[in-house]
Amino acid sequence: MSSQLKVADSTHDPNVYAELITIGDEILFGQIVNTNAQWMGVELSNVGIRVRRHTSVGDKESEIIAALTEAAQRAHIVLITGGLGPTKDDITKYTLAAWFDSPMAENPDALAHLEALLARRGRTLNDLNRQQANQPTKATYIHNAIGTAPGMWFDLPKGDKAAHDMVFVSMPGVPAEMKKMMRDIIIPKLVARFDPPIIIHKIIRTIGMAESNLAELIESWENALPANVSLAYLPSFGQVKLRLTGTGTNATELLAILNEQAELVLPLIRDYVYGFDQDELEKVIGRLLQERNATLATAESFTGGSISQLITAIPGSSGYFLGGVVAYDNEVKINTLGVDRQLIINHGAVSPEVAEAMAVGVQRATGATYAISTTGIAGPGGGTEAKPVGLVYSAVAYPGGVFSVKQQLLVDRHLNIQMGSLWALNLLRKHLRGIID
Amino acid sequence: MSSQLKVADSTHDPNVYAELITIGDEILFGQIVNTNAQWMGVELSNVGIRVRRHTSVGDKESEIIAALTEAAQRAHIVLITGGLGPTKDDITKYTLAAWFDSPMAENPDALAHLEALLARRGRTLNDLNRQQANQPTKATYIHNAIGTAPGMWFDLPKGDKAAHDMVFVSMPGVPAEMKKMMRDIIIPKLVARFDPPIIIHKIIRTIGMAESNLAELIESWENALPANVSLAYLPSFGQVKLRLTGTGTNATELLAILNEQAELVLPLIRDYVYGFDQDELEKVIGRLLQERNATLATAESFTGGSISQLITAIPGSSGYFLGGVVAYDNEVKINTLGVDRQLIINHGAVSPEVAEAMAVGVQRATGATYAISTTGIAGPGGGTEAKPVGLVYSAVAYPGGVFSVKQQLLVDRHLNIQMGSLWALNLLRKHLRGIID
Repeated sequence: MSSQLKVADSTHDPNVYAELITIGDEILFGQIVNTNAQWMGVELSNVGIRVRRHTSVGDKESEIIAALTEAAQRAHIVLITGGLGPTKDDITKYTLAAWFDSPMAENPDALAHLEALLARRGRTLNDLNRQQANQPTKATYIHNAIGTAPGMWFDLPKGDKAAHDMVFVSMPGVPAEMKKMMRDIIIPKLVARFDPPIIIHKIIRTIGMAESNLAELIESWENALPANVSLAYLPSFGQVKLRLTGTGTNATELLAILNEQAELVLPLIRDYVYGFDQDELEKVIGRLLQERNATLATAESFTGGSISQLITAIPGSSGYFLGGVVAYDNEVKINTLGVDRQLIINHGAVSPEVAEAMAVGVQRATGATYAISTTGIAGPGGGTEAKPVGLVYSAVAYPGGVFSVKQQLLVDRHLNIQMGSLWALNLLRKHLRGIID
Repeated sequence: MSSQLKVADSTHDPNVYAELITIGDEILFGQIVNTNAQWMGVELSNVGIRVRRHTSVGDKESEIIAALTEAAQRAHIVLITGGLGPTKDDITKYTLAAWFDSPMAENPDALAHLEALLARRGRTLNDLNRQQANQPTKATYIHNAIGTAPGMWFDLPKGDKAAHDMVFVSMPGVPAEMKKMMRDIIIPKLVARFDPPIIIHKIIRTIGMAESNLAELIESWENALPANVSLAYLPSFGQVKLRLTGTGTNATELLAILNEQAELVLPLIRDYVYGFDQDELEKVIGRLLQERNATLATAESFTGGSISQLITAIPGSSGYFLGGVVAYDNEVKINTLGVDRQLIINHGAVSPEVAEAMAVGVQRATGATYAISTTGIAGPGGGTEAKPVGLVYSAVAYPGGVFSVKQQLLVDRHLNIQMGSLWALNLLRKHLRGIID
């Protein structure tokens, strides 16, 4: 542990550097987007480890060897993903064994895990699977809680091969498996091992205000930020996250500074702030409902189940979410939600009247305290001069009343469904917080 | 032109290799997903140029120089994006001038374009903008049709610096600007210059069979693949994509070879193959329904709207998808879907009986030809000894009948919802294709 710090100090650079090597022809050929590298970049930054370089190479031994050899001259940590599956094109493990000059052997922990996992799926071990229990004997076995391919942790002392005392970690390329392994095991181990400088982030989550307008509202505050605190605007789908990053040596002090800055900015943007750090909008709404002992139901047309999917992704949502109706067809709006047929004939399915009737309908059918509805034209087809693609209405039914709001979204179907879902959830949040009624 | 081919021939490797260098701290820290690299990978593969490596480095001269120096020893083509903007952290142009040992000068084409573009936006040239007309004199100016930063094309003959006669191209990092420049100018120029061999991919999409078992089923076929065809397994969430990659000089012949190989493997795995190339499962199901003039409804418990969200993400799904009910609470199962309360008391909500009653209930309520239902324990809470987390039932109601299937999924809520949704969709596909009833 101390040796790493000494290495860093001796070069007058306190940073701990990581390099990412993502392996797979499918990355180079563009058949998948490399979200693993992006995710790892965020998680490492969060604990103060700086990503210095990211390299993608194909499923070829010489290419992988070259990438390992180069990274060993630059970084303290090399994180490798991909190529750990059971098939012939998965060569990462054998390449690491060659590069580390290590024999292979069956690892009993890996074998026990494989057998248990396959038994749970009602399958038995075949020869191909069994190979997944083999690993270089110089590696420490890393548990893969949700898949068959274990991870491997190698220590490599400073020497001919390595410019520093180093750690190499090989992980599966399947994003869910890699993420769980990183969060539960690898990141805590790396932090304990390298003791990186302290970097703390505080995220202020906003919705309903564009990045440039938000920047105007908080300009004076931003200009007065302390020198060790920086601000980034992270926009996505009608939301903007304000990320404060503090760097220092004392976590308690740093956290106090960040919290103080958050307190200062809040009065400038209060109606747009829905949460902090990991509080997704749907989680915040769940909390607001639970505080009131209230329940929720949804009636979705153009969002097609996307709102209920967001709500039910939160563990414990069955405590306040009763259910919903995806009323794509008008007959479903009429028969299942009890929307008056004449209302649809008079105003059209995409109208404030129908949005409100849908919300009230599902509220009545389920007995929920609150209900949200959406109706609109997601696109690319279905638009008219009077009702263009992206025109949407959302309604909130509450005890004793209902209201609806109109919004003109964009031309992309996928974006409209995502933004429309968040926007409808935000209407409910604003109602629950007394900002709109 | 011939010299490149000779170089390639002399090493007995007919491939033309490209490397991508994407520049920007925001990539390394994970603030953006590197979609540029993915897009370039697809476009280059399509014209037979093989991406050998992809490197991301930060906005730092020494890092960029290192990446250029390494790539020059391996590739024929180096494509660089990012760092061409007008602000202080944009250093790519100056770094390239240093590495190519080239003076800088104002380029008249670049200046004329800048002036015209700013005039169109009602602005005049300031000093910061004017710097964007400067470029290394060794570079050829490349027109940026939609932005202010021009591209640069460098030829570098084989020598101390370069292992081959090479081309380096620097492009803006803004995706739309880079894409237009690549499509309109760079790719045609590269193809004319290097005359690459033709590479064609064919993807066979499977579901319901693990990678290792699939590999066993097709082992003899895989071992007998022609020398110019390679196979990769791309697994995700219970699906495995088989990617065949053919290399040759004649596109028609190559396509025939790939189609022939697909025909050969199909009988070995027919029940698991749901589509080819870009056919997602939910798109395939839409097609199967449309062929039958049939409609679909959903009744979801633990998947919480995720199935209807997948279906409605497909444009035109309103032609066959009537709607669905997210029956999270038992009272919604009883009141909205008409499930018999006694059935839930006798068998529990997570049971084949309730799954079937939900499917039949939503089929009846909506008048749909087919209906899918899910009920299960997504986790992390709610599991018991008899009904553990991950236990799920799915049912398919068809004209005149209903069936259900049990599945034991994993322990992760998020994965269970995703895998359970695809698995339920696959049951419907299997029924429509006559594989299960």
